[in-house]
Amino acid sequence: MSTDADTAIVNDADSTSPAYSMDDLVALCKRCGFVFPASEIYGGINGFWDFGPRGVALKNNLRDAWWRDMVECPPIGPDGEPLSIVGLDSAIIQNPKVWEASGHIGGFNDPMVDCTESKKRYRADQIRVLISWDVEADSGDDSHPAIQRLYAFIEDDESSYKSAIKKTTKYAKAIGVSVVDNPEHWSFSHPEFADARQYIVGPDVETPGTLTEPRMFNLMFETYIGAIRDEDNKSYLRPETAQGIFTNYKNVLDTMRVKLPFGIAQVGKSFRNEVTPRNFIFRSREFEQMEMEWFCPPDQSQVWYEFWVEQRTNWWKSVGLTGDNLIRRDHDADELAHYSTACADVEYRYPFTSPGYGELEGIAHRGCFDLDAHQKASKTKLEYFDQDLQVKLQKEGVDKEEIKQRSKYMPHVIEPAAGLTRGVLALLCEAYTPDPERPSGVVMKFNPAMAPIKAGIFPLVNKDGMPEVAQKLYQELRTKYACQYDGKQSIGKRYARMDEAGAPYSFTIDGDTLTDQTVTVRDRDTASQERIALDQVSTFLADRID
Amino acid sequence: MSTDADTAIVNDADSTSPAYSMDDLVALCKRCGFVFPASEIYGGINGFWDFGPRGVALKNNLRDAWWRDMVECPPIGPDGEPLSIVGLDSAIIQNPKVWEASGHIGGFNDPMVDCTESKKRYRADQIRVLISWDVEADSGDDSHPAIQRLYAFIEDDESSYKSAIKKTTKYAKAIGVSVVDNPEHWSFSHPEFADARQYIVGPDVETPGTLTEPRMFNLMFETYIGAIRDEDNKSYLRPETAQGIFTNYKNVLDTMRVKLPFGIAQVGKSFRNEVTPRNFIFRSREFEQMEMEWFCPPDQSQVWYEFWVEQRTNWWKSVGLTGDNLIRRDHDADELAHYSTACADVEYRYPFTSPGYGELEGIAHRGCFDLDAHQKASKTKLEYFDQDLQVKLQKEGVDKEEIKQRSKYMPHVIEPAAGLTRGVLALLCEAYTPDPERPSGVVMKFNPAMAPIKAGIFPLVNKDGMPEVAQKLYQELRTKYACQYDGKQSIGKRYARMDEAGAPYSFTIDGDTLTDQTVTVRDRDTASQERIALDQVSTFLADRID
Repeated sequence: MSTDADTAIVNDADSTSPAYSMDDLVALCKRCGFVFPASEIYGGINGFWDFGPRGVALKNNLRDAWWRDMVECPPIGPDGEPLSIVGLDSAIIQNPKVWEASGHIGGFNDPMVDCTESKKRYRADQIRVLISWDVEADSGDDSHPAIQRLYAFIEDDESSYKSAIKKTTKYAKAIGVSVVDNPEHWSFSHPEFADARQYIVGPDVETPGTLTEPRMFNLMFETYIGAIRDEDNKSYLRPETAQGIFTNYKNVLDTMRVKLPFGIAQVGKSFRNEVTPRNFIFRSREFEQMEMEWFCPPDQSQVWYEFWVEQRTNWWKSVGLTGDNLIRRDHDADELAHYSTACADVEYRYPFTSPGYGELEGIAHRGCFDLDAHQKASKTKLEYFDQDLQVKLQKEGVDKEEIKQRSKYMPHVIEPAAGLTRGVLALLCEAYTPDPERPSGVVMKFNPAMAPIKAGIFPLVNKDGMPEVAQKLYQELRTKYACQYDGKQSIGKRYARMDEAGAPYSFTIDGDTLTDQTVTVRDRDTASQERIALDQVSTFLADRID
Repeated sequence: MSTDADTAIVNDADSTSPAYSMDDLVALCKRCGFVFPASEIYGGINGFWDFGPRGVALKNNLRDAWWRDMVECPPIGPDGEPLSIVGLDSAIIQNPKVWEASGHIGGFNDPMVDCTESKKRYRADQIRVLISWDVEADSGDDSHPAIQRLYAFIEDDESSYKSAIKKTTKYAKAIGVSVVDNPEHWSFSHPEFADARQYIVGPDVETPGTLTEPRMFNLMFETYIGAIRDEDNKSYLRPETAQGIFTNYKNVLDTMRVKLPFGIAQVGKSFRNEVTPRNFIFRSREFEQMEMEWFCPPDQSQVWYEFWVEQRTNWWKSVGLTGDNLIRRDHDADELAHYSTACADVEYRYPFTSPGYGELEGIAHRGCFDLDAHQKASKTKLEYFDQDLQVKLQKEGVDKEEIKQRSKYMPHVIEPAAGLTRGVLALLCEAYTPDPERPSGVVMKFNPAMAPIKAGIFPLVNKDGMPEVAQKLYQELRTKYACQYDGKQSIGKRYARMDEAGAPYSFTIDGDTLTDQTVTVRDRDTASQERIALDQVSTFLADRID
């Protein structure tokens, strides 16, 4: 569990940013049917997005790859045999006691302040509009080092706060107060500033002193189950899929004949009532996760932790994040939760984090924190009886009482928790390649296995029997690969559409096809063309995609 | 949209019921990892279920088959070319204006009554504990025709109300009031009985007159978006996936270069705050749907309606519902919504509906009701400009003004709306086959393509090189098919486990394998065995599953 602070976000855009902006990407996503704003015809709804035809195909490809590589065909373990991982799909709404035990009701909070004038609510740790108090006027000119530093800070800060900060800085200068001279103090959640509320100007007002004390605000969406709306019937939309795994750990152990080490994996939606959703689908209020909990004997947990950090980093490379935009970042000791001995993130350099990185997946060593918590709260025994260990200790002649004690223990857990929605965003960012030489101006260079469409199939012209041959090829290919038949407009425009959709190959049936049974295949990335036999198209795709 | 009244549910169990009870099925689902009660270690949560390892595999197989047959490889249309259908994945939470426009805020209600004594709330149309008022005592014996009829009714009614009804009937007899003599009046929602509240005994109390007047209760789960909980920030969990399609109709039309007729399809979770969830996963509060909206010119809509009713009925047969448990039921005129000209259900005979049927999918002719409603509420033009028709009319020499008028219209919609969760239940019911001759006592005869595991792979004994050969075969097969390696206990027990899991084939590596490279393949349905070449196992499966 993590409130997922923006530890790695450095700035919005700078000289080392990619050669495109998020606005470009968002526009392409809308234009090409990847991602639409939810409820767009009603003016949208902040923090929610719909996946269009291309987006859902891309997302399904990523989801299915994870499911195949985790559940259907898990990695080979150190002993040469496949790891044991089973799938699960738990409900989004669970008994609220789950969230009490997991700590989400008590701890999954952001400090919030209300503004008594604007009536708006803000995350205290994001209010950085800090003006020092009641001192003599400074020179008021921009050259003051503190103001310079604040300007630098403004550039680094989240865009949604920029204008407010700028306004307040201007106001600060106008009324002649000086700017606090220490960036570390520039957070409202710092006690010193919480104490100095009367001197602080809120983001949407002109006068200081309108912000309330910070209060904790829970990130879980609430709802009521059944007909009566009272505390007894309150429940929550899950903020993570992981807890549904822990609550089913015993069911899986009792029914699936698994033994340690083994994993339980699931993909599904989670919801977090972010106060300021932002950065497109990076921080939305409704999103999808791909989480696996790996249960293992405590003395093997460190080895498995390393195993999974490496596995998961490589997996993201296998789906197309092969460049230097992907890094592994090990958490510092002071970043770890109290129960955790190790945590690493797989991070991606998104345009809005560049040159820094943002989280894509976290691999956490969670010890036995979760199972302990659920055992205590549910009064259900969740300890594992290790029969193999018992036999081993018996053979070693270990004392009976000691065997009994050592054979029964709470498993430790390694949790590779990936964002499916963020994964889609990373694939989109990685694929986006401006190319002013092409009619489309941009080509989406998806890994072929991830591409929402694998091939375009075109008759060069809509006559002379070409559409019939193209349609026949299309109907053959579509049973195996997501394909697009397109007979409209010039061939150049059709290539351009495939470039934007990210289809790795386009096959054109032309006059020669009718005489020599060959087709033109055009490569998305190089725009080069070659001719291959019509009856080899399926094999051509199989060699490059499967 | 439908509150989906139990029109077809006839009774709980009678002599024509299948040879197993729902309790048997629920027990198997738990025992074999298909379906677990959600939050079970915390005492569960009414109306929510988790899918275990086998259940999620079964559900994914059904989901993927629908997606392939709807989106990736849609049916061939009347013109010999594949239909045009694109996928979508819209958010569960949308702008609340969507639900205003769709009619769900105003109309998606159940009439509810509160009991001032028990403090419980009931669905008015399910309170059937109706006692006539203040008349002289009847004979009080069971032979009174009204009491006999009430007894018959009790047998037919939902199990959760049985005991309450029985108790009240007993009470009625004790206090000597007669039972209402007309079954059609046995509903609290009938005006005559709503007026006579003071004479009616609530389900959980002993004295009459404690029920309030029926009030409408909305079936949508509510939640609040953002930090402030007021009416402005209230939103809902979608009660159906369909509206996310209508709100994206324009986006798809603008970006996907589709033309009428075409479809938009999506699979996803929906939520309904059922007051009395029941019948296992048939009526749960969180469930999954597979819905497609087929947009077409109004004058073709009736033909497409028939097309889709037939397609969808056949599709359910193709995934294994081949017996006479599946029927098509055309709605009577008085069942139709005011805007609808036709609706048919694909119904399945579940154990709890037998000998009647319950809904699995509804195929509705919705006219232009939804697009009209969204156009009006969003003030966004959703009409379709039919270029093909324009050209055709121009060729026919039709008057310019008439062409203009006729070429622009609101599409009509045919909606095949299937229940994924109910589909899984139907597959489970259809597969469940008691067989006292087998060690397992039951065999799950899934269609091989739907089966959560396709094959078990066993070494006969864990020595003499058999595990190595079996492990090699397993590692080869698992890249293509969901397989289970099992080396534990007797071969009979392993077959029994595969019977319960519904794996159609089991391959055993034995002593002969090592000499002649053959394996035993055991057929789940017949329990017969034959020997095939080890290197033919993959082909054997491909022939029977793909």
